[in-house]
Amino acid sequence: MTKVNLAEKFALFDERWTPKIVGELNGQYVKLAKVKGKMVWHSHEDEDELFLVVKGALTLHFRDGQTRLKEGEFYIVPRGKEHLPEAEEETHIVLFEPKSTAHTGKVKSDLTVDHQDWI
Amino acid sequence: MTKVNLAEKFALFDERWTPKIVGELNGQYVKLAKVKGKMVWHSHEDEDELFLVVKGALTLHFRDGQTRLKEGEFYIVPRGKEHLPEAEEETHIVLFEPKSTAHTGKVKSDLTVDHQDWI
Repeated sequence: MTKVNLAEKFALFDERWTPKIVGELNGQYVKLAKVKGKMVWHSHEDEDELFLVVKGALTLHFRDGQTRLKEGEFYIVPRGKEHLPEAEEETHIVLFEPKSTAHTGKVKSDLTVDHQDWI
Repeated sequence: MTKVNLAEKFALFDERWTPKIVGELNGQYVKLAKVKGKMVWHSHEDEDELFLVVKGALTLHFRDGQTRLKEGEFYIVPRGKEHLPEAEEETHIVLFEPKSTAHTGKVKSDLTVDHQDWI
């Protein structure tokens, strides 16, 4: 592989809620996403999912509370836990999760993307 | 878990070449390390290892070349590939690797730490 520059990769796309794959290791993917607004409630049965904010702020809503991530903060949503990501302004996030992770879990919505591209 | 603020975690320790664990997911650890100078040549037989620079610059030497990572850049060293990390100035890095990863692979040196702490 070659090194990955996060800012250069983020500059390659504009779509929101459409994670792009930028790395693979140990059966996991590193993904980048631009987000704004609300996603949908979903969970991943067998996969823990890491959200790291590199620009902006992301609120992760849970059925029993929420956490707000600013730049340089991450949170690991454990498998099985329902979550709804939301960003007021455009926010750039790094995701780390198993290759098997479906975008919106078993939930299908207008935001669901079945195929995620490498950039 | 609670959210993790990278800067706050980095402020908790000064030791160099002594990764601290800040997260766990899917059998992998997220670790932080402060580094300066040269590490030792080593490899990890069964584990790919991600290095992300959040402050400073890190050179990863390989037997057949090298790559230099600046802030906001990452590189995934594939399993089995010998590498020697080096930093001219103090550099802060995030590591992502399986829980089974030994600090310096099968190589033992003065820099080797057998136990890595959560912070």
